[in-house]
Amino acid sequence: MSKVVIVYHSGSGHTARLAQAVARGAQSVSGTQALLVSVADVEKHWADLDAADAIVFGAPTYMGSASAQFKAFADATAKRWFTLAWKDKLAAGFSNSGSPAGDKLSTLQELAVLAAQHGMLWVGLGLHPMVPSQKHPGQLVNRAGAFLGATAQSPHGAPDAEAPPPVDLETGELLGARVAQAAARWVRGK
Amino acid sequence: MSKVVIVYHSGSGHTARLAQAVARGAQSVSGTQALLVSVADVEKHWADLDAADAIVFGAPTYMGSASAQFKAFADATAKRWFTLAWKDKLAAGFSNSGSPAGDKLSTLQELAVLAAQHGMLWVGLGLHPMVPSQKHPGQLVNRAGAFLGATAQSPHGAPDAEAPPPVDLETGELLGARVAQAAARWVRGK
Amino acid sequence: MSKVVIVYHSGSGHTARLAQAVARGAQSVSGTQALLVSVADVEKHWADLDAADAIVFGAPTYMGSASAQFKAFADATAKRWFTLAWKDKLAAGFSNSGSPAGDKLSTLQELAVLAAQHGMLWVGLGLHPMVPSQKHPGQLVNRAGAFLGATAQSPHGAPDAEAPPPVDLETGELLGARVAQAAARWVRGK
Amino acid sequence: MSKVVIVYHSGSGHTARLAQAVARGAQSVSGTQALLVSVADVEKHWADLDAADAIVFGAPTYMGSASAQFKAFADATAKRWFTLAWKDKLAAGFSNSGSPAGDKLSTLQELAVLAAQHGMLWVGLGLHPMVPSQKHPGQLVNRAGAFLGATAQSPHGAPDAEAPPPVDLETGELLGARVAQAAARWVRGK
Repeated sequence: MSKVVIVYHSGSGHTARLAQAVARGAQSVSGTQALLVSVADVEKHWADLDAADAIVFGAPTYMGSASAQFKAFADATAKRWFTLAWKDKLAAGFSNSGSPAGDKLSTLQELAVLAAQHGMLWVGLGLHPMVPSQKHPGQLVNRAGAFLGATAQSPHGAPDAEAPPPVDLETGELLGARVAQAAARWVRGK
Repeated sequence: MSKVVIVYHSGSGHTARLAQAVARGAQSVSGTQALLVSVADVEKHWADLDAADAIVFGAPTYMGSASAQFKAFADATAKRWFTLAWKDKLAAGFSNSGSPAGDKLSTLQELAVLAAQHGMLWVGLGLHPMVPSQKHPGQLVNRAGAFLGATAQSPHGAPDAEAPPPVDLETGELLGARVAQAAARWVRGK
Repeated sequence: MSKVVIVYHSGSGHTARLAQAVARGAQSVSGTQALLVSVADVEKHWADLDAADAIVFGAPTYMGSASAQFKAFADATAKRWFTLAWKDKLAAGFSNSGSPAGDKLSTLQELAVLAAQHGMLWVGLGLHPMVPSQKHPGQLVNRAGAFLGATAQSPHGAPDAEAPPPVDLETGELLGARVAQAAARWVRGK
Repeated sequence: MSKVVIVYHSGSGHTARLAQAVARGAQSVSGTQALLVSVADVEKHWADLDAADAIVFGAPTYMGSASAQFKAFADATAKRWFTLAWKDKLAAGFSNSGSPAGDKLSTLQELAVLAAQHGMLWVGLGLHPMVPSQKHPGQLVNRAGAFLGATAQSPHGAPDAEAPPPVDLETGELLGARVAQAAARWVRGK
């Protein structure tokens, strides 16, 4: 059994839907226990984070980096950093914004540096760019072409039912599944 | 009169077309002398670079950063760095790759750090993401949503006549014009 | 007359001392009006920011990026971003942390991307690394070797009277003076 | 048995010494086969890279990013990228430059993005900053405070016998050992 925790902030609900997709993807891997934690509820879930084999960080990109609400969580992890309590866990990340690129790479870099400070190993998306979707014929997963993590695009003000679009949620599921598979292998090897 | 030099590497010809667009944009600003220099010819043009008020760096994104050919040029600028010979020039950048995001932000960050090492001032794109094109109704400039510089997307193997597409070339022209306007103001203020 | 606003967050007081140094450096340039604004007081100072010719962003590096308190300010600037109200202002940045490098470059990159999203021009430090101090013989300014902005190192828990050390404050003064000189030239050229 | 290949470029010999230290650290882990490959000799070693469980990338930081010689190697890995031949290998990185920070984080970010494009998992340094050395009493490993990888500082023109200093080589050894331990666990879990 491997434990994957997805910890995220969402402003408008779009990143939350991407987080749910990542959790679905992780849960789809046999032997995985996936837990979705909003940073708003993190105070109840520090023990879950401490027990995780992999932690996936998710935040909207606001003004070119992770939202302040996510950053407040990241800063609060300093307590774990002082003892390197999360060393050797796996880590991954995802972000949503309003345009295809939208400086989301900057957010993913920020998350990867956060993970490195904790001594965690970073699991990227592991997909080529613009790969034909298995679920949505004629469409593409990883359509923006990102590699450090999963990215989604939600037009400003788009209703939850439409954004992020299904292929971006599928990209999130693929990241979740990849992290869960890596976590299972990492746990077995211990 | 202000002098803008665009120095670039192009592998397949796509980045060269983007470079030409940046030069057209710069040249369109009254009182600007724009010069296009391929890194293959840079040995003949160091004096032009030294005399420039603004230098625009351009490279394709290969494996997540500027091409080795561009980097060889960047490394050769170390001779200028030792005397800070390019201090207080303006700088800007652009990149082309095969997918919308394609880690081109990583290349732009690399170019911005190069400029900072030289003591140059960095001029970003200065556009909102996904702005209606003036030239191509119904299409969008800065369609990927980049801010540190101009980005273009050319499908792998696309013929020169089609890639980068006209709106990405227009984005390049807008960067060129912006740099030329900034250079004119910067020269006047001296 | 050119106006330079330094807007910063400080947790332990170390970044505040660096911010004061940047302000001193800016104020030392004839014809400059420098204003120091803590993000805690920013609600009273949006008009000052809107009227500035140059804005210098400063934050401690926590867990590899700007503190959440600074990020909350950065996110609040989105209101200006929607109208590109800060387009063509100059920008610069600084950061403090407990070790020489300490991923402060990550924070400076975050600040430079924030500035680019606003259409601002980024003014780096403009110094070689490890330059002999004018004020403190035998010591070095820009001792860590940073270029995108000014960096300082304050040992965790060091008293205010000792951290950041004088040469790092001098580095901050040099950034402030450089920004003020650039702002004066930029204003003259308008 | 797990295989760790360290592939590096060195201009003055300083990065080569750091690479040797990383190899020593990897070799010190029981059951590890460590191989040191200069990018100048890479044509003879593609099969070794393809057979590796972990690849450690190393380059000097020139003008704020990896040297052109290293980048030429990175660009040549595109042939592996087209088939994702290196997917699920571990990756790590190191860099040397003349000042404590010296924008080496920019190089490590470049290497981490390269690894992510290949679908590799990134192993950071896993150390606190400024940790007391086990080998050199009174001195510090990870003295600059980097996390994405190992960094070393060699004064410009310093003789090989003195640069990088022993504590930076020890930092490299610690990275090598960490990568080898992670590779052993990753191989066992397969």
